[in-house]
Amino acid sequence: MKLAILFGGASFEHEISIVSAITVKEKLSRFDLSFIFCDQDHKFYMIDGAKMKAVTFSRGEHRKMPQIVLTNGGFEQRGLFGSKKYEMPVLNLIHGGDGEDGSIASLMDFFNIPFIGPRKEASMLSFDKHYTKWLAASLGVKTLPYEILRKEDKRAVATAYPFIVKPARLGSSIGVSIVKEAAELDYALDVAFEFDNVLVIEPFIAGVKEYNLAGFSARGEITYSIVEEPQKADFLDFEKKYLDFSRSGNVAEASVSDTLVQQLRTAFKTIYTPLFEGALIRCDFFEIDGEVYLNEVNPIPGSMANYLFDDFSGCIQKLLGSLPDKKAIRVQYDYIHSISQAKGK
Amino acid sequence: MKLAILFGGASFEHEISIVSAITVKEKLSRFDLSFIFCDQDHKFYMIDGAKMKAVTFSRGEHRKMPQIVLTNGGFEQRGLFGSKKYEMPVLNLIHGGDGEDGSIASLMDFFNIPFIGPRKEASMLSFDKHYTKWLAASLGVKTLPYEILRKEDKRAVATAYPFIVKPARLGSSIGVSIVKEAAELDYALDVAFEFDNVLVIEPFIAGVKEYNLAGFSARGEITYSIVEEPQKADFLDFEKKYLDFSRSGNVAEASVSDTLVQQLRTAFKTIYTPLFEGALIRCDFFEIDGEVYLNEVNPIPGSMANYLFDDFSGCIQKLLGSLPDKKAIRVQYDYIHSISQAKGK
Repeated sequence: MKLAILFGGASFEHEISIVSAITVKEKLSRFDLSFIFCDQDHKFYMIDGAKMKAVTFSRGEHRKMPQIVLTNGGFEQRGLFGSKKYEMPVLNLIHGGDGEDGSIASLMDFFNIPFIGPRKEASMLSFDKHYTKWLAASLGVKTLPYEILRKEDKRAVATAYPFIVKPARLGSSIGVSIVKEAAELDYALDVAFEFDNVLVIEPFIAGVKEYNLAGFSARGEITYSIVEEPQKADFLDFEKKYLDFSRSGNVAEASVSDTLVQQLRTAFKTIYTPLFEGALIRCDFFEIDGEVYLNEVNPIPGSMANYLFDDFSGCIQKLLGSLPDKKAIRVQYDYIHSISQAKGK
Repeated sequence: MKLAILFGGASFEHEISIVSAITVKEKLSRFDLSFIFCDQDHKFYMIDGAKMKAVTFSRGEHRKMPQIVLTNGGFEQRGLFGSKKYEMPVLNLIHGGDGEDGSIASLMDFFNIPFIGPRKEASMLSFDKHYTKWLAASLGVKTLPYEILRKEDKRAVATAYPFIVKPARLGSSIGVSIVKEAAELDYALDVAFEFDNVLVIEPFIAGVKEYNLAGFSARGEITYSIVEEPQKADFLDFEKKYLDFSRSGNVAEASVSDTLVQQLRTAFKTIYTPLFEGALIRCDFFEIDGEVYLNEVNPIPGSMANYLFDDFSGCIQKLLGSLPDKKAIRVQYDYIHSISQAKGK
């Protein structure tokens, strides 16, 4: 079964996308895989599978490999004497900007390429933590209280200390700080504003229980992963998460009650349906006083959360067989015809 | 000054986009214009300005004109002996799907082409009337109360009759009905569900005052159009709106109090800033008991609402000189370098 892994991108998470792709390569060895690298200038390269190592990209060796371009139905390698076409479904594994902000989804849809990954609306609503709050609220899924701070606003925060400051549109903990007292505020805001003009501020609850659950919908039903209780210090910083993206061994299932599993699955399903069709996503939750709170949605989780599934290859195969259809719009020119006729032309 | 008008698209509003483009051509004769037609299969054609007539497209004559493709920085016409590049800013005039749903914005950004039009987030939030409600609520701009009905829901509506049923993601009144009594409900829902799986239902207020206001931001300040009180029957249906898209003569300013103008401008500015930078938008408002309610945001208004501006050419020129910058992300491969070193590779 053919599948192209699309990775890289003009994103703060470019490097972890490379790590993710290398990890997924091992886990999907059953597939006939191709590797398409999107560099930071949005050039695409077809990467030799044997060269799928981090240093290939950091040393710029990908530039010696064939450059390809988007074309209707796939990618194309142009040469002096004709062109070679690559037509296969794509697994969008570009984390952060490009991959999760709706750009890649728009490109795949526009060029009519079937793909695994969030569609453009799902991307936009999950990429921005502020919009995820709106989405969750509209669906009745609880999230922590929050406030929004924009770069042009006064640096006044109403949330009580300690709180957590997050750039609205970044994953992988980039630019995130816990602020324990007023003296730490300015620095934390400076750091976060380096990455985004909009910040989300939430109470920081030390020792809160966290649970991750991944899943996807295929043939009308959701396949859930096991529930994981992620290891953490205060929270995972970028470097720890970076290593996290190369996870491939299976993890231990969290020892949680059936009731909690059911609560997590219900919340997952509410968020997933129907926006995230076509994607395998991971939702990160808090549990507070027996209730489940959505922390964030990862529409393209690190290494596709492969380590949470027993049969990851089987899951991807199942998902590939159940990608959402695009509704074709056929233009009939009825209005122009009727107006031209009325004008006697 | 060079400018390409991009129009057409795989959209229910394909035909009115053609009408819009023809109208704007006349109004921007001061520019060195090109015309790029996107057909319903997402092929692009460079249209001869002399052939900018509706029948060119309804008869399929555009297919005899040069086909062009997206490339970094612009469009490209490929030939046997090399290719010709077109590099100029683009005015996104694709109404509805593609143009207003974030696809074209994603493409322009991805291929690094400067453009007039809503960026991808602004597109997504204004294209879907449901999300526009979320946006307005978060900014403290009033809208009518509403409920959402999905295709899979029971056909039970809580809003009192009469109410208005709208597909969430279509402009130009397509699929919109006023439902005056229970007997009319099923048909109205059938019609609306032809176009979208999600409907927005709002109370219908007969004779409510409507006001339209267009504008854009350039060099840090907003240029407002005059306020128009649109002519209407019960509401504009598609055929009337279609003709509406070819408007080019200036309209009379609504005779409204300075207070109301100020209220409308304040609401406009609140919605516009900072999401809509780079776009000329039209906001349609209701006035009820001295208060202003946002009805909808048109991020690519019909014929760019040229008829609401005294000096439309001057406006477009000003906007072109003030398009938002994209923040470039440079990848340094710091993490891969440090990890490779740690591994001794």
